[in-house]
Amino acid sequence: MTDPIVPAFRYTRLATDGAARLGRVETAHGAIDTPAFMPVGTAATVKAMRPESVAETGAQIVLGNTYHLMLRPGAERVARLGGLRAFMAWPGPVLTDSGGFQVMSLAKLRRLDDDGVTFQSHVDGSRHRLTPERSVEIQHLLGATITMAFDECTPYPATEEQAAASMRLSMRWAGRCRAAFVERPGHALFGIVQGGVYPHLRTESAAALTGIGFDGYAIGGLAVGEPHDAMLRMLEHTAPLLPDDRPRYLMGVGRPQDILAAVRRGVDMFDCVMPTRSGRTAQAFTRRGTVNLRNARHAEDPRPLDEGCSCPCCQGHTRAYLHHLIRAGEILGPMLLTWHNLQYYQDLMAGIRAAIAEGRLDAFATAVLAGYEAGDVEPL
Amino acid sequence: MTDPIVPAFRYTRLATDGAARLGRVETAHGAIDTPAFMPVGTAATVKAMRPESVAETGAQIVLGNTYHLMLRPGAERVARLGGLRAFMAWPGPVLTDSGGFQVMSLAKLRRLDDDGVTFQSHVDGSRHRLTPERSVEIQHLLGATITMAFDECTPYPATEEQAAASMRLSMRWAGRCRAAFVERPGHALFGIVQGGVYPHLRTESAAALTGIGFDGYAIGGLAVGEPHDAMLRMLEHTAPLLPDDRPRYLMGVGRPQDILAAVRRGVDMFDCVMPTRSGRTAQAFTRRGTVNLRNARHAEDPRPLDEGCSCPCCQGHTRAYLHHLIRAGEILGPMLLTWHNLQYYQDLMAGIRAAIAEGRLDAFATAVLAGYEAGDVEPL
Repeated sequence: MTDPIVPAFRYTRLATDGAARLGRVETAHGAIDTPAFMPVGTAATVKAMRPESVAETGAQIVLGNTYHLMLRPGAERVARLGGLRAFMAWPGPVLTDSGGFQVMSLAKLRRLDDDGVTFQSHVDGSRHRLTPERSVEIQHLLGATITMAFDECTPYPATEEQAAASMRLSMRWAGRCRAAFVERPGHALFGIVQGGVYPHLRTESAAALTGIGFDGYAIGGLAVGEPHDAMLRMLEHTAPLLPDDRPRYLMGVGRPQDILAAVRRGVDMFDCVMPTRSGRTAQAFTRRGTVNLRNARHAEDPRPLDEGCSCPCCQGHTRAYLHHLIRAGEILGPMLLTWHNLQYYQDLMAGIRAAIAEGRLDAFATAVLAGYEAGDVEPL
Repeated sequence: MTDPIVPAFRYTRLATDGAARLGRVETAHGAIDTPAFMPVGTAATVKAMRPESVAETGAQIVLGNTYHLMLRPGAERVARLGGLRAFMAWPGPVLTDSGGFQVMSLAKLRRLDDDGVTFQSHVDGSRHRLTPERSVEIQHLLGATITMAFDECTPYPATEEQAAASMRLSMRWAGRCRAAFVERPGHALFGIVQGGVYPHLRTESAAALTGIGFDGYAIGGLAVGEPHDAMLRMLEHTAPLLPDDRPRYLMGVGRPQDILAAVRRGVDMFDCVMPTRSGRTAQAFTRRGTVNLRNARHAEDPRPLDEGCSCPCCQGHTRAYLHHLIRAGEILGPMLLTWHNLQYYQDLMAGIRAAIAEGRLDAFATAVLAGYEAGDVEPL
């Protein structure tokens, strides 16, 4: 029984500019204008931000981490409290990752077998197991709008043989995820293309996933240390293999220039800890490149961090004040810089969407990169 | 030359209820309804709060710390950046303490002489000197709306002889502060009554200060470890010695029950780190007493922290979520609890003011204390 007021999960391509796509994703919990950047809300909070503030930046969807949430506070507990969206007071759609990536990067004593992975919590050493079925179940308990297939993120470097074996394991798991996923109106399951930096493995992976059939397709195993050129080649190779009528999500990317490059190769969705993590380490993204506010040159600078930014940090505060907050270790420093960085990313995405709509993405990208590469304003 | 649009600094008593006073302080930077609680903004930030949020709680004035600000970022630097109010983007009045208390509690290798105090910074070990004249000069550089006289906060316990010598030193310094203070319309200099727990020393101190003449009078050297009864006796003794037409400020106090007791003894202004500091250690002030949100009983509690509170923490989030944020060490935990605690304090003050206006302060205090002592709501 489909509740008629819940829209189906649907991607609509509204315009193109070269390979770049302007689109809209409708979900049970609200729409997402693409290309979209999803702030990372690892442990049910976009760090140092109230959810209202995240929404004020223009973000329409946030990401939650299955690995972190299954360990603390626990998926069943989140379910009893109404699901992740209610728990963290985020009314819009949420995407949850599968846990696979964090198990490999954070957990202790992990042991991978063909059925899944056993590991120890980095929080308290307790033992846990994730399988494709359990990952999908956890994401269901969390109430994810978009569930990600459980996979192994092939590390870089990997030999062709290693990359092939890892990708084929992920494809077997993708089929099990599809079988385990409980369909609900407006909810989605995304498959993840793997295959390292080997085009024919990417081709094989995309074919396997489209054969199974998913509501959207992620490109995984990139931005894991490979050369930038290799990432771009893999995007150019992989994006055209994916169905036009499904959103494409490049996981864990990235810097503004990476996002621009990926959009121009047909990617619709992004997530990255960079704006939030940088906000806690005095690094700001601006229209004039990255700025380290710990630097003494800002100590008496009465100018805003980024003249072109509308966020409360730039509208209300000086670089001198931000510098002081950071030097003094004050919580308000990360709060303001995180807000600014998320605003920068959302403004970038809004600019990208407007440029695609008007067929001027190349010029937009050139202008953004020129400002970025010009570097920070001159000291006073 | 007085700018005609800047109001004079003036205290108006609007109503009384017993010894309690409802009043209004007009300043160059805005009015303060009294009894008032001033959030502490030690290093030019009310920790974990944007200034807009501080104002949203109803706070009309914040406190800054001369000791912290002279060390970092430096008073001259703050002056070049437009003063403390511009620097921290707080448009209302600010009160700065004199630095004396923090020199004694935080600085290293301090050496007191009759002229002032030499000390080493707790931040970087650099050597500094504060005298009455320099403290007043720093507060002028900071652009303080209300400047506090530089004094020695007599510790507890102190013998009568120690307390007398300390108080008399502070009174000599008070005269030097008065001489050093540059009068500006709507700005004020407050003297500080000392004398430990010895009534005749408090009498001598109040007489010395009123003889010099100040725009307001603080009661210092209380809430420094003396028994609660001793504090109340000193308030009952001291408040009537102070002019009716000047505001009275009890420094560093305190818990909600202390504020109620002091208001009933004629005090108008308060400051305390308790709401902000507690907010960073999982302690909340509620209409049902203090609540430790780290406690496991909250792990699945879907209720708000305080049913009677209008703050974003209570309106938007559950105890379960706050518990999770604290357990996970997320910045949003201190952000939300600080906001709530400051809202609690401002709501308390608003309730006190309404009760004085309507001549029902005793009943109000009884009701507040009854709720407070009833303890937290039953676990679900």
